Order: sequence, then structure tokens, then C-alpha cells
Amino acid sequence: MEIIRTITEMQQKAEELRLSGIKIGLVPTMGYLHKGHLRLLDIAKKNCDVTVMSIFVNPTQFGPEEDLDKYPCDFERDERLAKDRGCDFIFYPDVKEIYPESYRTYVTVEEITKSLCGASRPIHFRGVTTVVAKLFNIVKPHVAVFGQKDAQQSIVIKQMVRDLNFDIKIIIGPIVREKDGLAMSSRNRYLSTEERKDALVLYNSLQTAKKMLESGVLDSREIKSTIEKIINSVSSSKIDYIEIVSIADLLPIKQLSGEILIALAVVVGKTRLIDNMMVRV
Amino acid sequence: MEIIRTITEMQQKAEELRLSGIKIGLVPTMGYLHKGHLRLLDIAKKNCDVTVMSIFVNPTQFGPEEDLDKYPCDFERDERLAKDRGCDFIFYPDVKEIYPESYRTYVTVEEITKSLCGASRPIHFRGVTTVVAKLFNIVKPHVAVFGQKDAQQSIVIKQMVRDLNFDIKIIIGPIVREKDGLAMSSRNRYLSTEERKDALVLYNSLQTAKKMLESGVLDSREIKSTIEKIINSVSSSKIDYIEIVSIADLLPIKQLSGEILIALAVVVGKTRLIDNMMVRV
Repeated sequence: MEIIRTITEMQQKAEELRLSGIKIGLVPTMGYLHKGHLRLLDIAKKNCDVTVMSIFVNPTQFGPEEDLDKYPCDFERDERLAKDRGCDFIFYPDVKEIYPESYRTYVTVEEITKSLCGASRPIHFRGVTTVVAKLFNIVKPHVAVFGQKDAQQSIVIKQMVRDLNFDIKIIIGPIVREKDGLAMSSRNRYLSTEERKDALVLYNSLQTAKKMLESGVLDSREIKSTIEKIINSVSSSKIDYIEIVSIADLLPIKQLSGEILIALAVVVGKTRLIDNMMVRV
Repeated sequence: MEIIRTITEMQQKAEELRLSGIKIGLVPTMGYLHKGHLRLLDIAKKNCDVTVMSIFVNPTQFGPEEDLDKYPCDFERDERLAKDRGCDFIFYPDVKEIYPESYRTYVTVEEITKSLCGASRPIHFRGVTTVVAKLFNIVKPHVAVFGQKDAQQSIVIKQMVRDLNFDIKIIIGPIVREKDGLAMSSRNRYLSTEERKDALVLYNSLQTAKKMLESGVLDSREIKSTIEKIINSVSSSKIDYIEIVSIADLLPIKQLSGEILIALAVVVGKTRLIDNMMVRV
């Protein structure tokens, strides 16, 4: 496995690979890898000849009050995990390489970035789409793999790819969970033992919602109110949002039908966690 | 010469060419070609193996009060001119192909799009950078050629390319002028005989500014005031702006030094014309 730290070198390598007819798969990450990331790597490997994992904690997607400075990182561990899983290249640039002085360009997806996480994190998706557009131009992948855990992000990126005509196939990998159901996240390490137990309410409430849907409950309010009760049953939780939206436009639906997304953001202790479920009703 | 009307076909052709190691040169235009455009084609041909000219009157760069609906077009003439000049492909999509329903993504370059033309045309550059980013992803060029007549546009595009890491060489082609000095523009056809004569004040005032600089005048105000007098000497002219700015950040300079841009926008009759001069002082 090779580690590449500059844009020029990554672009040259990518161009060289493409010219030889080799298919490149990209897995963009912010590092501190867990099994969810490694699963995305597996998917990239299955769909491509060569895999590039990018590791970059992207400052433009963090608000001023958010956890950029304490975002966990351990490059040596990431390197080992990626290598053991068969990754071919890690693209690991520093911040000045990605955002040099007099940086001025942003990619914005309108409307669908205003609800859900976009409501409480107003500049978040602008940062995500900007850095992903840059990574696409740097790594030149044929395929890029994102995780469904960031459900809104995956929908926003698909919209950007369609709108800006990136000739890249986007694959969304499934949410990987701990044995008890908690969605894997680099932020889970912030949780105390007690909070770790409480954090299960996200998964549990989604499971209950699933059962309600299966039993024919189609009233969005009824399902949201049940989720709310389950989450509020533990004292360390504070709901950011519970939303049931159409996958097409991320707008709320009252009477459920078609492809829907049930998405949660809950602060447990001081840690903001997200989880979701996509279903066809 | 081949005419391509869909994104899928253009991307497939571009990928095929790139895989064969063929270098692609793109000349983006809004059609109604004049000698300025054809000169850009020459430059693309000199720097690449295959040239693609795009012809697309981009609605997102026109304000609601602007001349989108009456923008001149004559595809058969354009086709003939491009073919005679040795163009290999024309990419000629319709509006729905480029902006389908539920289109939501925009590329914005901050700061340097607020002055000069950006001041009187607030959404203009957002439209330009968005469509150019799309064209880059559709045509996949190694080189793209823009005209210096749209000086601010060329600087904004270079910034976008640098910031978003498009692996594309940008070449700026010179302003091509009529025998008497008027900069070629598709909009010149709007001018009446009288206005056509009056329109010369743009070029003439830039020539005078050049002589002043050569004779050692470095006070921006003095040069601007002379330009203003020359332009106001004809009755059909109305100044939009006269600016002398640094090429690096497009901010006004008082005492001239370094790489500077003198840029004019003048409405002659009902037609808005632009012209400029880049000099190292």
C-alpha cells in the first residue's frame, strides 16, 4: 500500500492508472476507521481494480461550535487497518494542500441540504460537497463508495454527481452496527459507559418504527411520536431531530408511501449521534 | 466534424479518446461565432490532438432583465465556421439536457466575483462557473481555452480550476478586434450604424490609458478620469464601470504597480459592451 500526500502526485498516479485501463475506486473518509469504513473498502475492491482511501478531516464541513479540534485521529492505526484490508493507496493530504491561501470556491446543493442535519449544521453540506468534488478531481475514480449512515450526505452527493455530470458511479454501502445494534461511528468513542448503553435508543426506536410500518401504520406523526418516547426514555439523550422524509427530495411526508427515509440525530451526553433507515413502503 | 447532443454520448467519446492517449481541447462558447472564437479554436488545435467546441447559451448566467431571449444564434452558420476551421466535435446540448428538472447544484467563486461585471450582474459568474464545471466533466478536456475579452471570467475560471483541482490546463486567448479596434462580440450585431461608431470609445480610451501608463502616469484616478471623459464624449454611451484592479484579487489599486487589469463595461444605445487591457506596470 502506498501513501500519497500531494495532489499532483495523486493526480499523476490516477491518470497513469486510467490510461492503462485500470478502474479506480475511491472511499472518502475522515479517518479513525471502523468496520463501517472497511466494509466500504470491500465494496470498492469488488467494483474496481485499484482502491484509494482518502483520509482528511475536512474543516469546511464543521461549524465554529463543532468538534473539529477534538475529532479523533490515529493515522498509524488507520494505515494498518486499510493495508490489512487490501487497500492500494491512502490519499492523506494536509489542510494547506487542500485549502491553500486565497481559497475561494464552493459547491452548493440547494434545497435538500436545508432539512435534517442541514438545519442544525448550516454550512456542513457545502463543506462536504466541496471537498468531495475536489477529491473526485484529484483521485479521478470510476466508482466512489459512501456509507448509508450519513444518509442525507449520500443523497446530497448523488444529486451533486448527477447535476455536475461527474462520470462516476456512486455506491452507497450499508450501515455497519455493533452487536447490540449501535451504528458504528468514529464519534462513539466519546461515549461514557452509561451513555454507550443509552445510545442504543437510536437503533431500538428505528426497529420499533420498522415493526409499526410492517404492521400497517402509515401515519408519520404516530411513528415519530413513538420514536420520540423511546429516545426520551433515557436521561442522557436530547433529540436534535426525528424526521420521516421522501428520499427523492428530503421533504417530510405525512401519509407514508414510496421510498422513505427515517432519520434521527440525538445528542447523547455531549456526543451527537445519527442513525437512519431507508424503506420502501 | 461530428455534432454531439447528449451528455452520455459526449462522455463516452471523451473517455474513448482519453483511453487512446489522445489530448482533448475544449473551447466553450455560446455560439454566434466570430473571429475571436475561431482564434480560440486555433489555440486549442495547437495544444491538443482533438478539439471540441461547445455551443450552449447558458441560461443560469443571465439575470432576469438580461438578453437571454434575444441572444443571437445561428447554428448552421456556426457549424460551417467551426468545420472550416478544423474543429473535430461540436457539443450542442439543449437546455433540458444541461439543466434537467430538480437541478440543484451550483459552483460559486467568492470575493473576486463581486466586483466589475459581478457588481451589475450578481448571479452571472455563478452561472458561468457552474456550466463550465459541468462542461469539464462532460468533455473531459486536457486543455480549455477562454477569451481574454471576458477578463474577469477568465480569472474566475482559473481560480475555480485551481480551487476544485480540475486537472485541466487553462489557456487565455487574446482579444480579437475589428480593423478599427472594436473588440469582437456576438452582441456587436445589436449596434446601429451610429452606435457602432460610438462604440469605438471603449478601445480608444484603453489606448489612451496605455499611452498614459507608458508615459509614467501611475495614479489610477487620473487614468480613470481620462477614460471617463473619452467615453462620455459620445452621446449614446452610458458607463457601467471603469475599474483598474490587481489581476490577483480583482481589488482596485490606487497607485499602479504589478499585474493590472483595466476593465470597462459601457452600455452603447441598449447594448452592453465590455473591453479590457491587461498590463504589467
